[in-house]
Amino acid sequence: MNTTVDCPLCSNAGGLLVLQTPKWRVIRSTDDVNFPAFYRLIWQAHLAEFSDLAADERSCCMEAVVRIEQVLREALQPTKINLATLGNVVPHLHWHVIARFDWDSHFPNPVWGTARREVSGGAEARLPLPLVDLDRRVALALR
Amino acid sequence: MNTTVDCPLCSNAGGLLVLQTPKWRVIRSTDDVNFPAFYRLIWQAHLAEFSDLAADERSCCMEAVVRIEQVLREALQPTKINLATLGNVVPHLHWHVIARFDWDSHFPNPVWGTARREVSGGAEARLPLPLVDLDRRVALALR
Repeated sequence: MNTTVDCPLCSNAGGLLVLQTPKWRVIRSTDDVNFPAFYRLIWQAHLAEFSDLAADERSCCMEAVVRIEQVLREALQPTKINLATLGNVVPHLHWHVIARFDWDSHFPNPVWGTARREVSGGAEARLPLPLVDLDRRVALALR
Repeated sequence: MNTTVDCPLCSNAGGLLVLQTPKWRVIRSTDDVNFPAFYRLIWQAHLAEFSDLAADERSCCMEAVVRIEQVLREALQPTKINLATLGNVVPHLHWHVIARFDWDSHFPNPVWGTARREVSGGAEARLPLPLVDLDRRVALALR
């Protein structure tokens, strides 16, 4: 498998590991308290672009992404799901799967945009279930 | 087909129409001069989330997205491709396919983030081919 010494996603999990397979791993990001329900599917091999994957790999990748989305929708009933693969800073293929709420700090702006409000008490406290339970549901859906 | 009177993507093309099929259309966005190579695949039916599509529709959707990506990579050799479906403002399924360059106004920030520089002469002038030719290549790849 391609790996690159200088790549942080080759040398680190990149967040709290939820589940992994030989092709990809899913982590929950703990980088930003404003967005607690923020998962990433990280392709294990060091590739930059979605189109670097073969057709069957793209399909397997997006089916995993969509399962995460489905769990977030069912468990959290978010206002919207945001999916993105950018990789401008870390060009190692990873998909962001983010549950967004009309009350969250940035909505309707993207999480990378300008904050619109403060969420008193913090965002995690507003979720209808503990993150550890959400992780468990995500892992179960991906098995 | 589901359509919604209040939805701008049900009542307008949403940009310069490149190609359409019964399931989706591809437009080039002319909203932001900083990002001239910015295409959107818009699902024709009014659905909010990627997981609202059936599995075969998701597959057809992403194969079209990836063809756009491939054309942008071949024609422009961008630093990175950004793919995203957000829909916080317009919850009608659409995918952003954006060619990013290390010289562009925001790189490595997302296009929704903070600008980092001014691009003298404008971004479009730096592309290696006219946008009308790029549109033609995208349309050809999608046929």
